[in-house]
Amino acid sequence: MPPLASTWNKSKVSLQRVNITSNAIQKTVRFSVINCSLKINHAQPALNDEIRVPSVIEEMENEEITSPSVAGRLVKGGPVFQQNVSVRSFEIDSEYKMSTKAIMNYLQEASLNYAKKLGLTIDTRFGITPGMRKMDLVWVFRGMHIEVDRYPCWGEVVQILHWTCASGRTGVRFDWTINDINTGETLVRASCLAVMMSKNTRKTCKLPEEVKEEIKAYLREDVEPIVEAFKYSCPQIEAMDHIKTGLTPGWNDLDVNYHVNNAKYLDWILESTPDSIRDRHELWKMNFEYRKECLKDDVIQSLSRVVPNNEKNREIEVEHVLRLESGHQVLRARTVWRTNSHSCRGINSMKTIF
Amino acid sequence: MPPLASTWNKSKVSLQRVNITSNAIQKTVRFSVINCSLKINHAQPALNDEIRVPSVIEEMENEEITSPSVAGRLVKGGPVFQQNVSVRSFEIDSEYKMSTKAIMNYLQEASLNYAKKLGLTIDTRFGITPGMRKMDLVWVFRGMHIEVDRYPCWGEVVQILHWTCASGRTGVRFDWTINDINTGETLVRASCLAVMMSKNTRKTCKLPEEVKEEIKAYLREDVEPIVEAFKYSCPQIEAMDHIKTGLTPGWNDLDVNYHVNNAKYLDWILESTPDSIRDRHELWKMNFEYRKECLKDDVIQSLSRVVPNNEKNREIEVEHVLRLESGHQVLRARTVWRTNSHSCRGINSMKTIF
Repeated sequence: MPPLASTWNKSKVSLQRVNITSNAIQKTVRFSVINCSLKINHAQPALNDEIRVPSVIEEMENEEITSPSVAGRLVKGGPVFQQNVSVRSFEIDSEYKMSTKAIMNYLQEASLNYAKKLGLTIDTRFGITPGMRKMDLVWVFRGMHIEVDRYPCWGEVVQILHWTCASGRTGVRFDWTINDINTGETLVRASCLAVMMSKNTRKTCKLPEEVKEEIKAYLREDVEPIVEAFKYSCPQIEAMDHIKTGLTPGWNDLDVNYHVNNAKYLDWILESTPDSIRDRHELWKMNFEYRKECLKDDVIQSLSRVVPNNEKNREIEVEHVLRLESGHQVLRARTVWRTNSHSCRGINSMKTIF
Repeated sequence: MPPLASTWNKSKVSLQRVNITSNAIQKTVRFSVINCSLKINHAQPALNDEIRVPSVIEEMENEEITSPSVAGRLVKGGPVFQQNVSVRSFEIDSEYKMSTKAIMNYLQEASLNYAKKLGLTIDTRFGITPGMRKMDLVWVFRGMHIEVDRYPCWGEVVQILHWTCASGRTGVRFDWTINDINTGETLVRASCLAVMMSKNTRKTCKLPEEVKEEIKAYLREDVEPIVEAFKYSCPQIEAMDHIKTGLTPGWNDLDVNYHVNNAKYLDWILESTPDSIRDRHELWKMNFEYRKECLKDDVIQSLSRVVPNNEKNREIEVEHVLRLESGHQVLRARTVWRTNSHSCRGINSMKTIF
């Protein structure tokens, strides 16, 4: 542990306020460092010396943060949540690009951390408020819309921004963007309607007033969705000519609510998507309409159909249905594919956070 | 962006040296902040003011780090790699504990980042050195041994330590521990033999001298494995009475080498493990012997047998085989299960890194 004392210059520290405590004598503000670069000229060791760091505070949040121990941060005191994540080696496809499934997982991660951060949930439970617990309610996703402009690469650090909004009388809309941390460019936009489901009856229900009251500080009003569902007609099941049957959830596909994680449906959609599309194209836009939860012992059929397209563009639209063997639909989806826009193979490593 | 100037005290900054540049006039040392806590008394805003932070440098690495842009850090200049990770909501089981599969994924992540960090690999490629590329070789895992003392909880930040060692003439041994970041307690120990495989013939081969030369700085010598394979006899396939057939890799189970990711085999083992064991016990020890790679169109049979145990302890041993329909074995494994040691349900959130 060689210590060091020296002349410090050109140093920058970006801070985020963690909490404020005050008593009769003094007010104490605690900060955590968001970003810091220090430069030392003529570094000379000097055991256990104290050093002085002239710094300019670049960024400072005005508002108190309630749960500094939870991943992510509140932007502008709460209406927007931010979390930076690094793309892992097991979250990429064969082109070293972040998989769409990993993107969907991180959207969920951001919304759970947002609720934790605001102190709305009980302990570490999955977005469960005290009122929801009393009524045995959990959140479920209904409709998810995602557009990917560029898939992040392995090792890249991206910034997820997330906010929520009341949606009619029944639900809450979740919005996300995933941004290039260096340029600020938006890479992914996603919007999703979430509703309440009873853990006992497994049926969805209106947002109870008690829960609405609990989470109202967390809901923005009159904000347009960051991405709209693209228009399409009802899927023609009888015309679906790509079919894969006998798909079953694995032990690792279940979440803490004992049903299949919303991102798993994407795996099953891909199972009946023609190889020629998956191999030479990438997912660009997705609409998912979740119709029924899927439990451990369910057996799923995946059906797909390439939508005929008379226009001479390179986009391919595919409609999908996942259903139980009984015929009950679990998911309706429509995906739009485009020619592979880029590869991350051979791209040099990105800025990372650790 | 409210600025701030004030009296700062009781501030601590832990730094890690990033790089050193020097010219005729000066030597510049760049640092990144590992940990920083600042306290301000009587905080008063003062626009764009410069502030002074009296700090004590707590930790400083002596050695230069070659790739500051890659996740993780080199401890003591290289022989050990460290990466801190936060357990995500989509990496946990129904008890809010990190899944064994997620653990296996992070072991791989650490070894890829270690190789990147040392500058041994080409661009972002999966652990491929220039010599390996020339000979069209990739790394494959042969035998993996894992022991889990405690599964980390959702939101918990854990520290992964990783090092490597030459193993005979043919391979390299990878060792890992996953540690509680607050207490230092070791939660997981893992050890794995990795060998070279030709991308063309798909056969394994000896470690070529050229590659050995490239990676020798990265190999420790005479270090005992952090965990040994436990002794067991050859699996009795004819006695295996829990069988699941027709298992196929999903699109998302393939890695950049176009074969099934090593952690996916665990999913398949669990498919034929009796529910009574999976439901009321947790995986404690695992031995995996990878015998053949598994490709996209392979169809897998999973076979398991609970090993009869005359002793009156609560451990349950299960032997497993994964094989192709042709009978070729893909994996042999033995797992040891113990009564569920703890749940993370209701545990309050942990220290996190973002």
